[in-house]
Amino acid sequence: MARTPKTPPADPTASSLYVQSVDKAMKVLMAFDGSQRQLSLSDISALTGMDLSAAQRFTHTLATLGYLNKDSSKKYELSPRLLDFTYHYLTSSELVTRAAPYLQQLSADTEEATNLTVLDGTDIVYVQRIVSRHVFNASVIIGTRLPAWCTAPGQALLATYSDDEVNDIFDRSQFVQHTPATITDRGQIWASIEQIRQRRYAHTEDQFFYGDVSTAAAIVDGNGRGIGAVNLAVSRSRWVPERDTKRYADLVISAASSISVKRKV
Amino acid sequence: MARTPKTPPADPTASSLYVQSVDKAMKVLMAFDGSQRQLSLSDISALTGMDLSAAQRFTHTLATLGYLNKDSSKKYELSPRLLDFTYHYLTSSELVTRAAPYLQQLSADTEEATNLTVLDGTDIVYVQRIVSRHVFNASVIIGTRLPAWCTAPGQALLATYSDDEVNDIFDRSQFVQHTPATITDRGQIWASIEQIRQRRYAHTEDQFFYGDVSTAAAIVDGNGRGIGAVNLAVSRSRWVPERDTKRYADLVISAASSISVKRKV
Repeated sequence: MARTPKTPPADPTASSLYVQSVDKAMKVLMAFDGSQRQLSLSDISALTGMDLSAAQRFTHTLATLGYLNKDSSKKYELSPRLLDFTYHYLTSSELVTRAAPYLQQLSADTEEATNLTVLDGTDIVYVQRIVSRHVFNASVIIGTRLPAWCTAPGQALLATYSDDEVNDIFDRSQFVQHTPATITDRGQIWASIEQIRQRRYAHTEDQFFYGDVSTAAAIVDGNGRGIGAVNLAVSRSRWVPERDTKRYADLVISAASSISVKRKV
Repeated sequence: MARTPKTPPADPTASSLYVQSVDKAMKVLMAFDGSQRQLSLSDISALTGMDLSAAQRFTHTLATLGYLNKDSSKKYELSPRLLDFTYHYLTSSELVTRAAPYLQQLSADTEEATNLTVLDGTDIVYVQRIVSRHVFNASVIIGTRLPAWCTAPGQALLATYSDDEVNDIFDRSQFVQHTPATITDRGQIWASIEQIRQRRYAHTEDQFFYGDVSTAAAIVDGNGRGIGAVNLAVSRSRWVPERDTKRYADLVISAASSISVKRKV
């Protein structure tokens, strides 16, 4: 499990192809990070490190394009036009299209929260979510990112990667205690990954959210490499281990396998 | 209802503050419009009208920033990182935060599809959606846009605007037949708007989707102006007019009223 350091790739932001203005526009949009609903020009300048005149040019441009709205007090806020990107991502994704009927069936069969996630960097990102009428964890929505190393979908995906790739993601992850129960020992997490490779599903309890019991399986491409994960998230108050462990594992394995691209013969 | 033409505003894209590169980057992202899953450089060039070298600069930049992924065949596709924008929009929106528990309650009470929409231009945009286990209209997801003039949430919102504003939106809308039942006569649509102003809810059947019965009420700000709409969408196969019309109207009016900002005294 040792990892030899690789030569870092040439900095792509130093390329003559790199358009700095696009970077700056995205920084302005990302300044509204959920905690920041409305920002003035000087707020944006302070949060992005741009001077006021640059901040003015990018807010003017983004407002003209319809991605920012300006209210009567001259503060800016994000516009629903940003949802166009999510809409295009979701409707153009072959994975999402293929997964949709299986997720709906899983949700109908279990009446528990059913999710489709993909890996981006060291995080899983929720791309589709069908909530249960029993439990509504309002902190998980489309676009939510959680660390891969301590979530069942993340571990299910990592288990399909090579040891080197997993170690590379672990190196870039922060093994912090999200709940009193979070396992942060790298050796123990590796033991989970090995176990997932054997039994084809991941199972975590209380690792990121306290009281959350999550069972996941990876959706793979024709080479057996994870391209997404299906998981069922159940509240501990509704979870009966002897009744549910095998049933939920079988359900996610079966759904993920149906969505997976068939292995090339 | 006549409308006097207004002087058009000065073109904001002609301002020296306008950064053309940002416009071009957004055009590249929008070239992936749901029908286009993977695009080559020359596809992007053709779809955006940019020359190849410009297309190359913007794809390089967007890939470096993580908004595009390049696959082994050198085609580009949208990255889940784009969902960050939706996540930030949703978590920073006071309306979405305030509405969430009421939508969840409506969904639990009715077990029908429950939506929060906002107006953007002439469209309603779905910003939150809780699907029913009975019906799953997969074509409506977060970010879906539908024309305001022929949808219950759109009409509920328009009814809170001035006649001039409604006429302005109607002028920019295309009154096309989406189903055999769509009412496209402007006078009849105006009659619906007047009725909604009286009874405080909008009700449409088969206007955009055939078999869809939708009941909506506007969420208003302190000045009584619509800032969003709550609606329940029910499949015709489950709809019993004498039992449901009043009940669903009462439910959406009550939810929208609870979410609304209290009128200033």
